[in-house]
Amino acid sequence: MKINQFGYVPTQHQQIIDELRDIRFLDLENIKIKSPLHLFRSLLLKSFSVHQGETTRIAKIASMMATETVDADSYTNGSGTLSKSAFYNVGLQLLGFTVDLDFSLTNPLKMMTEVGLPIAEVTDPLTRDDVIDAWYRLLNTRTKFGQLLIDKLAGEGYYHQFLADETFKRPLIFNGKAQAVFDTDHLVREVVYVESPLDIDHDGRRDLLKVKLIRPAETDRGLTVPVVYTANPYGEGTNDKWSESWSHDNNRPLKRKQPNNFTYRDVQDTYDHSKVPVPRTINGHTKQAEETFTMTWIYSLNDYFLARGFAVVYSAGIGTKDSDGFRTTGTRDETISAISVIEWLHGDRTAFTNRVDQIAISAWWATGNVGMTGRSYLGTLSIASELTGVGGLKTAVVEAGISNYYDYYRENGLMVSPDGDDADVLAEFTFSRQQSAADYAQIKEPWLAHLKQIKRDQDHDSGSYNRFGDARNLLKENHAKADILLVHGLNDGNVKPAQVWNLRKALKSKSLTQKLILHQGQHEYLNNFRSFDFTDIVNLWLTNKLLNVANQANQVLPNVIVQDNAHAETWHGYQDWGGQEASIQIYQLGDDQMINPGGHTSFSDHLDKSQFETYTKDINKWRDDLYSRDGSPMDGHCIRILTPPLVNDLVINGRPSLALTVKSSQMVGMISVALMDYGKANRLTADPQVLASQQILTGYHWRKDDLKEFLPKKKANDVKRVVQGHINMQNRENAYKVDDLEPNTEYQLNLVLQPTFWRFLKGHQIGIVIYATDMAYTVRGNQDIRYQVNLASSTLRLPELK
Amino acid sequence: MKINQFGYVPTQHQQIIDELRDIRFLDLENIKIKSPLHLFRSLLLKSFSVHQGETTRIAKIASMMATETVDADSYTNGSGTLSKSAFYNVGLQLLGFTVDLDFSLTNPLKMMTEVGLPIAEVTDPLTRDDVIDAWYRLLNTRTKFGQLLIDKLAGEGYYHQFLADETFKRPLIFNGKAQAVFDTDHLVREVVYVESPLDIDHDGRRDLLKVKLIRPAETDRGLTVPVVYTANPYGEGTNDKWSESWSHDNNRPLKRKQPNNFTYRDVQDTYDHSKVPVPRTINGHTKQAEETFTMTWIYSLNDYFLARGFAVVYSAGIGTKDSDGFRTTGTRDETISAISVIEWLHGDRTAFTNRVDQIAISAWWATGNVGMTGRSYLGTLSIASELTGVGGLKTAVVEAGISNYYDYYRENGLMVSPDGDDADVLAEFTFSRQQSAADYAQIKEPWLAHLKQIKRDQDHDSGSYNRFGDARNLLKENHAKADILLVHGLNDGNVKPAQVWNLRKALKSKSLTQKLILHQGQHEYLNNFRSFDFTDIVNLWLTNKLLNVANQANQVLPNVIVQDNAHAETWHGYQDWGGQEASIQIYQLGDDQMINPGGHTSFSDHLDKSQFETYTKDINKWRDDLYSRDGSPMDGHCIRILTPPLVNDLVINGRPSLALTVKSSQMVGMISVALMDYGKANRLTADPQVLASQQILTGYHWRKDDLKEFLPKKKANDVKRVVQGHINMQNRENAYKVDDLEPNTEYQLNLVLQPTFWRFLKGHQIGIVIYATDMAYTVRGNQDIRYQVNLASSTLRLPELK
Repeated sequence: MKINQFGYVPTQHQQIIDELRDIRFLDLENIKIKSPLHLFRSLLLKSFSVHQGETTRIAKIASMMATETVDADSYTNGSGTLSKSAFYNVGLQLLGFTVDLDFSLTNPLKMMTEVGLPIAEVTDPLTRDDVIDAWYRLLNTRTKFGQLLIDKLAGEGYYHQFLADETFKRPLIFNGKAQAVFDTDHLVREVVYVESPLDIDHDGRRDLLKVKLIRPAETDRGLTVPVVYTANPYGEGTNDKWSESWSHDNNRPLKRKQPNNFTYRDVQDTYDHSKVPVPRTINGHTKQAEETFTMTWIYSLNDYFLARGFAVVYSAGIGTKDSDGFRTTGTRDETISAISVIEWLHGDRTAFTNRVDQIAISAWWATGNVGMTGRSYLGTLSIASELTGVGGLKTAVVEAGISNYYDYYRENGLMVSPDGDDADVLAEFTFSRQQSAADYAQIKEPWLAHLKQIKRDQDHDSGSYNRFGDARNLLKENHAKADILLVHGLNDGNVKPAQVWNLRKALKSKSLTQKLILHQGQHEYLNNFRSFDFTDIVNLWLTNKLLNVANQANQVLPNVIVQDNAHAETWHGYQDWGGQEASIQIYQLGDDQMINPGGHTSFSDHLDKSQFETYTKDINKWRDDLYSRDGSPMDGHCIRILTPPLVNDLVINGRPSLALTVKSSQMVGMISVALMDYGKANRLTADPQVLASQQILTGYHWRKDDLKEFLPKKKANDVKRVVQGHINMQNRENAYKVDDLEPNTEYQLNLVLQPTFWRFLKGHQIGIVIYATDMAYTVRGNQDIRYQVNLASSTLRLPELK
Repeated sequence: MKINQFGYVPTQHQQIIDELRDIRFLDLENIKIKSPLHLFRSLLLKSFSVHQGETTRIAKIASMMATETVDADSYTNGSGTLSKSAFYNVGLQLLGFTVDLDFSLTNPLKMMTEVGLPIAEVTDPLTRDDVIDAWYRLLNTRTKFGQLLIDKLAGEGYYHQFLADETFKRPLIFNGKAQAVFDTDHLVREVVYVESPLDIDHDGRRDLLKVKLIRPAETDRGLTVPVVYTANPYGEGTNDKWSESWSHDNNRPLKRKQPNNFTYRDVQDTYDHSKVPVPRTINGHTKQAEETFTMTWIYSLNDYFLARGFAVVYSAGIGTKDSDGFRTTGTRDETISAISVIEWLHGDRTAFTNRVDQIAISAWWATGNVGMTGRSYLGTLSIASELTGVGGLKTAVVEAGISNYYDYYRENGLMVSPDGDDADVLAEFTFSRQQSAADYAQIKEPWLAHLKQIKRDQDHDSGSYNRFGDARNLLKENHAKADILLVHGLNDGNVKPAQVWNLRKALKSKSLTQKLILHQGQHEYLNNFRSFDFTDIVNLWLTNKLLNVANQANQVLPNVIVQDNAHAETWHGYQDWGGQEASIQIYQLGDDQMINPGGHTSFSDHLDKSQFETYTKDINKWRDDLYSRDGSPMDGHCIRILTPPLVNDLVINGRPSLALTVKSSQMVGMISVALMDYGKANRLTADPQVLASQQILTGYHWRKDDLKEFLPKKKANDVKRVVQGHINMQNRENAYKVDDLEPNTEYQLNLVLQPTFWRFLKGHQIGIVIYATDMAYTVRGNQDIRYQVNLASSTLRLPELK
């Protein structure tokens, strides 16, 4: 077990006293206690003060051991000193660790050091000031079950006892983070309809967007609160079945494309801002919404903030159930749909109480400060909003968002879309208006026409960057000004790491603070892991950006936090990702040092029929065979090159690339490359495992969450793909210009792989697998094409951490 | 999709009107409406009355289609009639079904018939009375997401709007079921310590038992409520790691036992009631508890009842954290621990506010009526309590409980315990007092002595029924008087179906009503399935037994409900299980009609070393090889006999058995038998799959639950084990008398398999696999023993449904 903590704010003694007074651990009575031991006892008694009876509180203390032989009640009732070991013996039991299982009473500090728990700098025995400082640090230490001790106490009702007291601070900040002092039993849930400056369904009226909001009841008594806003196109339902019929069949040949001489201007898209109908007449104003809702989707990160005095707002956007408009998959229209809600929250746009009466309702309970959250499409809309520089948006916490749709479905002139997905499929998937029968009856024809237009314009067969793609390149216009916290999985094969890489690069030109967290998972949320205090980091971040608390969030948090792939539960802080700290090392693929187990320099992309069918049904088997060092049915269908075993650990930080000299035997061709880590190891699973069910308390009798972790696999294995890349040999220059391709002619390809941050352990070997059809991503026509690679004039370039 | 409903109570028109008034769908205003169409509109408007604005309510109606071309708003605003088809088009949309995906507006009744949704007996067009009756039936129809429409509306806030009204009935009964009219935002959570008549840890004081209770806030204003009580030994934590060290190694040989002439008297245990210390002095009385708690375990069935005016009580019992005593794994002491809580709830026993002050607190908020719930060990304690006839216990809903511990770990003189579990392992696993360091420090020595005594007395090696086992045979004393609802998985390999079979048999001698539900899962809870209204059934049951509502629960519910193994999502009602409705058919195993694919009549139980090691690591592979018809590495290690393909479906209802004539080549021997279903089919998975996440609303802004189902496997396969059995050849007469065993001598074995309810489809073949070592259950010493079966004098007896 390892526990990493990045969200702690170093705090001075006087500030500690003030904060402990604010949260009522110190009061007029116990501040006077001179004995360190008795002060400790007083703090312990307060930890259990949710119980009305003092006997019960003492029993709780008596159930813990302070030394090997004396329980914490007897110990703190004495007249002696408070040893460091006794303090932490009790402290660890408060943190949920079990004596003799997790640690030994003879030496609690040993386990704390091993696990990474902070030990306060105190003398032994502790002075009175030491007790105060160490107690503060303990409250800000993470329990065995992945949350801060103060959050666990809050979950058990610690703050709840003070809620009747008008003088109790709300919001309440402790160590820079907003505390769970809001009453989630009385949240107000309302629906409003924001009038967007859009008319996507061309019905002559501005599109109304359904917005669901949850706000603390305290807002009804004058408090204004910041907003955590999630734009979630899936939020009103998805058309799982209906969208299937739009998906494309990947079992088709790679087609030759007609060469062209396109420049960017040929594919440049310009957004048409015209033709927005005038706003509706406002027939009146009210502060009272008239519709409520029940959520069935649970987003525990947002729920955590509801207990801490933030409102939470959800909007599914244009083309979703109870809203107007159509889904467009990533255009400026969807961005405008997302930011219309922020504009309303910021006081810059109108919302109505219902879709008919035109009675306006403002976000009168909001401070106007908005932060966005969400993963995947939800994160994509956060990125899109961020890049507009819309007023009111103070930050976004983006998990695995798309910054350019071209890189989502396509790569270097190739389709790379598992299951034949494309923009049309996703548009139909999210078009939940179709589930509202009466609504759909009125718009069925224009919707189908619109969808067919998407299907035509995306030009699924070509894989080239075109005007359709340009309209969905969110990075094209960049007015970003809000600080941003980015999160991405280095093993995310859905929204790939290049999305966040390119976004970071674009944001570097702007005057804003950006932070990045890279984990070793796939397409996952991070807010319930034991080894990493993600939720606390987000709290520190949003308390800073939305509540304007000067908590040093920008200074305390490293610019880049990376989960180590080779050591479980280990997270490191770095200055940057792929910046000056890495230097490019070049490996000649034909070099004598390099190992080519099969001795191949060419390969056939054609598999015999049964083998091909086996692989299309069992992609994992295909991967195993492809990535094995040698001696699999994929020998002769790829080229594998390995470095000698590494003499030291080697860390790649950035984007590997290859310069390849390749011939195709036909007038079409594609090349795929995988960068491999060979070497026996118990590697981390990229799917989180549940460590403890429902143990995380996000508030008092509020949402619980499972504790999770990326755990090492039980079986060691030899092979891990680090990153990959694909290229259409007809797109050697860029993704929109189509080059000619002569059979059996050598061409230079420059293939940039996905970016990564990867530790190759000493003794491991770096590998490169060069192949063509990617059964998981590209079209798979099982064409009779032979590829020849001139290894002598091919190189691998690796950005290696100095 | 199929939806089966057993919990509906047929109701007369006048009663329907009264009930609809109670739940406020009919009121003084709309009762006067003459037009069926306009009455329907009024009911629809009330369905959405949680929204304050009439415009919003109308918009909700307008979003549904009544006919292929007219929406429900326009339709119900007209002056025409209300067609049956329009009623159900709207009704299905209210139930969450999607137009064009789940059903067609041209013929809603077609889909309803296919899925099994009830269609009210009404004329077309509907009369005014028809509208009332059909609306009532619709509210009591299950939605696409596995709950009644009225429960879905309640989850969205329907009842919440009436809570401020003092005249609104609480509890409120609708169609015989308690409604979600209680405010779960203000539940009272308290801890008390019940003083049990036990002193298991021999400290000279009666053992105090921690009890957690959750009661509606309405009890503070004079309401008394019944209790749903779950005795959960896992509830205060489990010693996963510590108990591992106690587990036994199954890789050991079967040992010869010394023959004896034991009669039952030699193994009979008598419970020692003496030596209970006197009760503690009561120092005072209070109504006010002084300790509260936070739950991390979620039991959604209990939570469902919290919203419906039942209190919920949890107790982990003797030997768990914050209680006294030791774990004993299934003795009378654990039973007394469980019923002590019921006695307190019923007013017959003392509880204190804490462990020290001896201030008594009664369950003053309780009616004294208690029903128990829970699965596995939890269900076991329900059975144990039921059999005592304790006052106050009105019913138990038992999911997969143990009725006799001998049958849990042992069978016919053999250990049949996966992973080498036994009573000692389970005692240590549940002894959560060990997690409380200071408590454990005081009792470590006596606990370890107690645990070692369990280890000695259980006599793990022998597998025989002994005095230790007799002390854990719950069926020995039977004073049962409470009606009982039993639930068991026919594929439960943990708590096997014989446990419920034997319990049912024992309860038949008592004057009580018992109901049984048999599903096709393993060791699973049933309360969130789409195809089956388990939660509604339990509601009907507890409303009858605990609230004393005359809702005809005993008459409405079939005695036995069985999930069909051969047809997905299909549940049938039966009169009995294994009673007169089945007749015994005898199959001679050596008959010419029978197929013996390998031609074997003898087999060696010895595997070569690598094969043996492969199987111990991969039990599923062993099973596949064993159960395959022929041509696997297990050929020659078993005998397989098949019937010819069946000409018609054949249903087994009861306990199959075999009379076998067998020789062992050694002085020890065991025989295992599996009854097989051979024939290609997409069989049901025994693990439930999630159909829809968090869609079940158990109350208003209260607990949500995932919707689940046992789905057919995507791949057809040939083989399914139906039931199995094991016997030690030295226990030919019974489990306690050890017989002699001469090598190479024929013995008659009578082996009764687990009971079942199983449909063999026409064309399938019934199979018997006879083998010895069961890699999954028995010891596995890989001994060199050869078994010979005299097939000519061996028979299979099947109880077949007439």
